[in-house]
Amino acid sequence: MRVIYSLPPVSDGNTFLLETLFMTVTSQPQKILTGDRATGQLHLGHFVGSLQQRVALQHQYQQTILIADMQGLTDNGHNPHKVASNILNVMADYLAVGIDPTKTTICLQSALPALAELTMFYSNVVSVSRLQRNPTVKAEIQSKQFGQSIPTGFLTYPISQAADITAFKATLIPVGDDQLPMIEQTNEIVRKINTIADKDILVECQPLLSHVARLPSPDGKNKMSKSMGNCIFLGASEKEIRQAVKAMFTDPNHLRIEDPGQIEGNIVFTYLDAFHPDKALVAQLKAHYQAGGLGDGQTKKVLEECLQELIKPIRERRELFMSDKAQLIDILRQGSAKAHEESQQVVNAVKTAFGLKLF
Amino acid sequence: MRVIYSLPPVSDGNTFLLETLFMTVTSQPQKILTGDRATGQLHLGHFVGSLQQRVALQHQYQQTILIADMQGLTDNGHNPHKVASNILNVMADYLAVGIDPTKTTICLQSALPALAELTMFYSNVVSVSRLQRNPTVKAEIQSKQFGQSIPTGFLTYPISQAADITAFKATLIPVGDDQLPMIEQTNEIVRKINTIADKDILVECQPLLSHVARLPSPDGKNKMSKSMGNCIFLGASEKEIRQAVKAMFTDPNHLRIEDPGQIEGNIVFTYLDAFHPDKALVAQLKAHYQAGGLGDGQTKKVLEECLQELIKPIRERRELFMSDKAQLIDILRQGSAKAHEESQQVVNAVKTAFGLKLF
Repeated sequence: MRVIYSLPPVSDGNTFLLETLFMTVTSQPQKILTGDRATGQLHLGHFVGSLQQRVALQHQYQQTILIADMQGLTDNGHNPHKVASNILNVMADYLAVGIDPTKTTICLQSALPALAELTMFYSNVVSVSRLQRNPTVKAEIQSKQFGQSIPTGFLTYPISQAADITAFKATLIPVGDDQLPMIEQTNEIVRKINTIADKDILVECQPLLSHVARLPSPDGKNKMSKSMGNCIFLGASEKEIRQAVKAMFTDPNHLRIEDPGQIEGNIVFTYLDAFHPDKALVAQLKAHYQAGGLGDGQTKKVLEECLQELIKPIRERRELFMSDKAQLIDILRQGSAKAHEESQQVVNAVKTAFGLKLF
Repeated sequence: MRVIYSLPPVSDGNTFLLETLFMTVTSQPQKILTGDRATGQLHLGHFVGSLQQRVALQHQYQQTILIADMQGLTDNGHNPHKVASNILNVMADYLAVGIDPTKTTICLQSALPALAELTMFYSNVVSVSRLQRNPTVKAEIQSKQFGQSIPTGFLTYPISQAADITAFKATLIPVGDDQLPMIEQTNEIVRKINTIADKDILVECQPLLSHVARLPSPDGKNKMSKSMGNCIFLGASEKEIRQAVKAMFTDPNHLRIEDPGQIEGNIVFTYLDAFHPDKALVAQLKAHYQAGGLGDGQTKKVLEECLQELIKPIRERRELFMSDKAQLIDILRQGSAKAHEESQQVVNAVKTAFGLKLF
């Protein structure tokens, strides 16, 4: 699971805990940096875990969203096509859910050389053993089963992520609990570089902790994962949604309709909590299900209707955007140009402070 | 000891084994990439080991010389001033020995973002364990005594060096025997990227092996090292040259002039071999010294005269160049602009082949 880019948690009942999110916000003007690895289309996990937040945050904050193709390559180095072919998919997903490029800067990581340059500078003040101790990286390396062949770019991606964050002077980074070590490592780099430069050229960031649980996959076995083909995409067709809900994991002991059923671990109810707008109705369904007499077919019908309704306009907007790729590219180019300007300022400040900016 | 950049070997008797060097050259047009880490002024070791070659090679080859400030930072990450303050020193050394910026492209590594970008791309196809197995890096890490704090940029610099070489489509890399693993690692990366791209966008390189031994330090204890303050700089004053020769290590058992003396390990004779234009005279002196009857004072006098004569015009040209830093910077800017254009073509070719060049 990757940090900052792509966090698909689920709401805990309120569709969007904006109040909680804003608790960490101080009075100074805040800049948000977030993004997604371009390794697949975005899905309902992203929607509830990050996309909704971004749509809301863009009205109040300077927000930069990075399509992280370079980071996508760190574990797809031998398959760049997988990354390349998903850049516009992710772009279309953003616009389809309501991220507004006039409010949010959407940019392409590989189009910003300052990020690579900053990574090089930071690499010299982070030891190899410090990277190996990073709990997030450790856990990811284990889960990826690289064996003895950990790609260098993968081990070092926390440095690259620190470059991404600092290049935009981002102060607020939406993350889950498990990514706090990445924020810590970024701030360590910030302090080291500022000490060496004898000047506060980089800005420390703080996590914007999302207190929502991760949305499980429809089969209940894994986290929702675009790479495992185990999720409901934002561009899912009516039929795909229907099939996904039909196959959804419920209570395996709930054999007859009249039996009392379990809510915990019942993915249908997890999704109803996350997506159904009528919380009272969901509470009623839960009570009925627990008492017995409510079949899985019925709960799934309610969920399917709600998901069809949610996804339909997104899918339609998505198709519209995907039908005009030149426009998508143009929006991405404009965002990247703005991001290039911002990030160049930071790398130039580092070079100047280090005495390397001779011309 | 760093690869490609800064190799200070000594001649084995012929001041410059150009014939040998050209043996590796094939019929296709060759491009040379070489350079120096900007961590100190250049010295006699550089002169005899690489600078003379470059002056000769620039007439026949497309030659790019990189002032490797970024690589200099890999083990000076906390002291960028050391690197920054030596960029123009190295530049002045180049021009003073006769490297001609109208023939050779002299450029600054940190001014070429393509090098950082290529490093990021290549990082994903090189495993951490492959880097740790690189014999050159292993030896350097030991000699640097980093302990548990190996800077990430230091471990990964072979990747960065592969970026430097391939960014200029260099085919011929002047190296010593001990740097052959670096060439091997570069060509591994070239083949991997070309396979992934399904197109020969990067060019393999071959070593331009220099069959000259490394010039020892005047005290005979170490290799000549600018960082250990144990060398004769190209800008050395008359007095500094005199003192260095006076303190030079000879035969410790040659106590009386009439005793037979040893040539092997006698640094005065090593330097006479490397620098004295009159080989017959040096042979005569050796025979006399070995037979007995020739004092160290006399051999040192001959050596000092020869070094004073060699260094004087270099020092004077050097001072002239250093008195007009704006001119030095201007030459470096022009070379870097040319190098930027070349290296951008390569990184753009990689991005295009990977499908990432959307705009």
